[in-house]
Amino acid sequence: MASSTPSSSSTSSNAGADPNTTNLRPTTYDTWCGVAHGCTRKLGLKICGFLQRTNSLEEKSRLVSAFKERQSSKNLISCENSDRDARFRRTETDFSNLFARDLLPAKNGEEQTVQFLLEVVDILLNYVRKTFDRSTKVLDFHHPHQLLEGMEGFNLELSDHPESLEQILVDCRDTLKYGVRTGHPRFFNQLSSGLDIIGLAGEWLTSTANTNMFTYEIAPVFVLMEQITLKKMREMIGWSSKDGDGIFSPGGAISNMYGIMAARYKYFPEVKTKGMAAVPKLVLFTSEHSHYSIKKAGAALGFGTDNVILIKCNERGKIIPADLEAKILEAKQKGYVPLYVNATAGTTVYGAFDPIQEIADICEKYNLWLHVDGILQGCNQMCAGYLFQPDKQYDVSYDTGDKAIQCGRHVDIFKFWLMWKAKGTVGFENQINKCLELAEYLYTKIKNREEFQMVFDGEPEHTNVCFWYIPQSLRGVPDSPERQEKLHRVAPKIKALMMESGTTMVGYQPQGDKANFFRMVISNPGATQSDIDFLIEEIERLGQDL
Amino acid sequence: MASSTPSSSSTSSNAGADPNTTNLRPTTYDTWCGVAHGCTRKLGLKICGFLQRTNSLEEKSRLVSAFKERQSSKNLISCENSDRDARFRRTETDFSNLFARDLLPAKNGEEQTVQFLLEVVDILLNYVRKTFDRSTKVLDFHHPHQLLEGMEGFNLELSDHPESLEQILVDCRDTLKYGVRTGHPRFFNQLSSGLDIIGLAGEWLTSTANTNMFTYEIAPVFVLMEQITLKKMREMIGWSSKDGDGIFSPGGAISNMYGIMAARYKYFPEVKTKGMAAVPKLVLFTSEHSHYSIKKAGAALGFGTDNVILIKCNERGKIIPADLEAKILEAKQKGYVPLYVNATAGTTVYGAFDPIQEIADICEKYNLWLHVDGILQGCNQMCAGYLFQPDKQYDVSYDTGDKAIQCGRHVDIFKFWLMWKAKGTVGFENQINKCLELAEYLYTKIKNREEFQMVFDGEPEHTNVCFWYIPQSLRGVPDSPERQEKLHRVAPKIKALMMESGTTMVGYQPQGDKANFFRMVISNPGATQSDIDFLIEEIERLGQDL
Repeated sequence: MASSTPSSSSTSSNAGADPNTTNLRPTTYDTWCGVAHGCTRKLGLKICGFLQRTNSLEEKSRLVSAFKERQSSKNLISCENSDRDARFRRTETDFSNLFARDLLPAKNGEEQTVQFLLEVVDILLNYVRKTFDRSTKVLDFHHPHQLLEGMEGFNLELSDHPESLEQILVDCRDTLKYGVRTGHPRFFNQLSSGLDIIGLAGEWLTSTANTNMFTYEIAPVFVLMEQITLKKMREMIGWSSKDGDGIFSPGGAISNMYGIMAARYKYFPEVKTKGMAAVPKLVLFTSEHSHYSIKKAGAALGFGTDNVILIKCNERGKIIPADLEAKILEAKQKGYVPLYVNATAGTTVYGAFDPIQEIADICEKYNLWLHVDGILQGCNQMCAGYLFQPDKQYDVSYDTGDKAIQCGRHVDIFKFWLMWKAKGTVGFENQINKCLELAEYLYTKIKNREEFQMVFDGEPEHTNVCFWYIPQSLRGVPDSPERQEKLHRVAPKIKALMMESGTTMVGYQPQGDKANFFRMVISNPGATQSDIDFLIEEIERLGQDL
Repeated sequence: MASSTPSSSSTSSNAGADPNTTNLRPTTYDTWCGVAHGCTRKLGLKICGFLQRTNSLEEKSRLVSAFKERQSSKNLISCENSDRDARFRRTETDFSNLFARDLLPAKNGEEQTVQFLLEVVDILLNYVRKTFDRSTKVLDFHHPHQLLEGMEGFNLELSDHPESLEQILVDCRDTLKYGVRTGHPRFFNQLSSGLDIIGLAGEWLTSTANTNMFTYEIAPVFVLMEQITLKKMREMIGWSSKDGDGIFSPGGAISNMYGIMAARYKYFPEVKTKGMAAVPKLVLFTSEHSHYSIKKAGAALGFGTDNVILIKCNERGKIIPADLEAKILEAKQKGYVPLYVNATAGTTVYGAFDPIQEIADICEKYNLWLHVDGILQGCNQMCAGYLFQPDKQYDVSYDTGDKAIQCGRHVDIFKFWLMWKAKGTVGFENQINKCLELAEYLYTKIKNREEFQMVFDGEPEHTNVCFWYIPQSLRGVPDSPERQEKLHRVAPKIKALMMESGTTMVGYQPQGDKANFFRMVISNPGATQSDIDFLIEEIERLGQDL
């Protein structure tokens, strides 16, 4: 999960309940932070894999006869007989005279289809292998114009006529070749890094099942998996299994948008039919360190970005509660209606946790909706969006389609469900713990070195470590606007050199009046201490002469 | 493309231009409908597959040495040597004592990873094979409580402890077993049907590349593919390559939402900062047959559903221009500001094309934004969302992240790009033509039979065919409220029986005051005349005694 919004998510099954549900707060917050911090319960991995093979017996006999039937009518040269399903093997196939139209559903297209897909899988397995191989580059950088001109025959243009499957396979290889290996142990550029093999298998299956979440009718298993997974997640933050409802959304930004919609509908349900013109001028509050999706949602939903008020943060990037209260009072005095506060559990840049208890007290005092934008690491690109949506047109409780602003909805759940099955809760905990340990390792390694300067003091709260690299020429130079200006240019230069050399990738950005700094965020399960060492050495190597 | 929004999408590069761009309209509309109807240009498939193998030479020598290096350090038992990349083969592996933690990035995890993924691929290939096999069922229906109780050991619950990879593989098989085969040639339940093998390969690659569209930095190839594909699509509707801009969005509903946001920003840019409270009361117009996403967007964006005004349609489901004009005038008289008209090129139920020329004339007359919600068949679940987005914070033209309301954005482009490469434009045209021919076949087959009654007269305009099945007991019975009531219950009953028997699937719904009818929509490239025959026979078989 790159981002999830637990606090706004669930509305109590009691429709009249206070949305801030103060009685749940202590448990919720503690447990949530516990999860986000990787949980301190270090349970051993007690293996209790329970093998269920019996379920295949009935299916088996059905398939065996179906298979025999097929064997007599078709010549499956790539398909070894087995007692269960067919097993496929690669044969040498000439794809230069085969085209998409020769694949299924074409008559007798099965053999070509199997061979084509096996060839694709070979390309993918080679890519996976190289991704985890530290002797390969993270990327082989080219400028847009270079790729557009066509790299050694890799032509992105589309034509009226079909290409052979041979060419399609070459295109697949080239697409991967000129891309970025986000699963490489030295790719640290984004929170979404690392390639989880179980997640990958889950995605391959999801795209093969090729269905859509809108009704139970066409996605029975996935709809139930989503329900069970969300229930489990709610239980982890201390809510009973009957509290709350939710769906997965395409990402954290849409989840945050849902959070604001839920708040608006709770306090002003008439907005749904009459629009924003029919209600008082509403204002939203969020920290100056929060994700920009809150502002975007404010613009899209018709609040206006001027009415998304930024709260000051302390030096660790946490909301200052007194500033929140002052700004709520100020807005009220001006005749605005304060509606909603977004608190963040793990900010984008610093990885800071806002003081949620104190913020919740303020929300309760002034009757505001409290939303928590939480970031759980270790489950890349899976985002939980819980919502209480105004549009429910029918009451078929397993048809989730109408809960989303979308009509069709991609099956995001299976990958995550399968990873949870395969790792167990303890597996996720271990994965997060490892990331936290690496963040601490990095911090300890650089905090006292003259080549580095930390952006804020103290141990990292999350897996973010923010620091400047100080090149020789700036070491010992007292702070001044001129020095700041020079320092501001260091990280971009190092990053550009890093992209050219393709050895590792890390993000940088300014924050407020702070010059550009590196934000190292560790979520890649493939990373080890040696990769952290490598990153630091690479920064020094590339930056020493700046 | 399930849905795309060409007309609203592009804003002329001349910022002051009329958004309705009347001079482009004739070309746009004709070409668009030409595409949507499958194009009448029946170009032969002139094969010009151009094999580009030279690009592998440099890479080759690099890889050979890298490979030799690896060979000496690792024992890749499943990996045959080759002059290029490794080739993988299955070995018998006992997964009962292997767990997710034994896979990459685990030390020496490569062999297990390859074997596990090959095993998954075997499951998927068996599924693909069965999907196209008409002797298999479309689905094996179970009620939610049955699946929740656990079918023959298929347990959806998540536990704290990891399951073995053996169990994970069983779960994968079961997930597919209890799902719906949306690629089955007799699955007609949704517009999104059919399993495209090239698209499938594209999705497998996309999930392996596992990146995100937000910047060129981490998705160089995909960002350029998206740009090239959208340019090509704009050219098809007659816009010069410099006109317009766009991104792919997670679906048609979000695309429609973007269309409304673009209109609002064009006419009232201050909404972005000041909100809907700062502008006059705006109204939107859409047909009573249009997709419900327009109303949803109206609610979400702060217009309110009361301000989404429905225009009457004729018996074929097309907007009546006179009613549109009357309602615009009525809104103006009441002091509202008419902002936007949504026209549909291929409505959800009837497949109707609104009279876009006449609607455009009205929009021009009253200075309204015209959006066309177009539906292109044959490219399942790929949705083009063009937009002119108010939020552009930086001007790095290949960083598409800030054009979307999302932060991260899934790579939707590769599948579509690869399909286009593999089929060529002519391949898509042929695919659409085939669907249109099948719709005509179905219409011709049932239009004069007493067991069936068409919902509207005349040949289908698109691939939608809407009809009632009239059971024996209702044949020859004159129309009456009582007959209507009985007829209303026929389609749901047949559908329920169909789900139980699992032989085929088709959707039904009421429309306005019309009793429930079947909406057959043909987009499955695997379907043939025999499948249409089968569907009709199935409906008769299941419905005869009702």
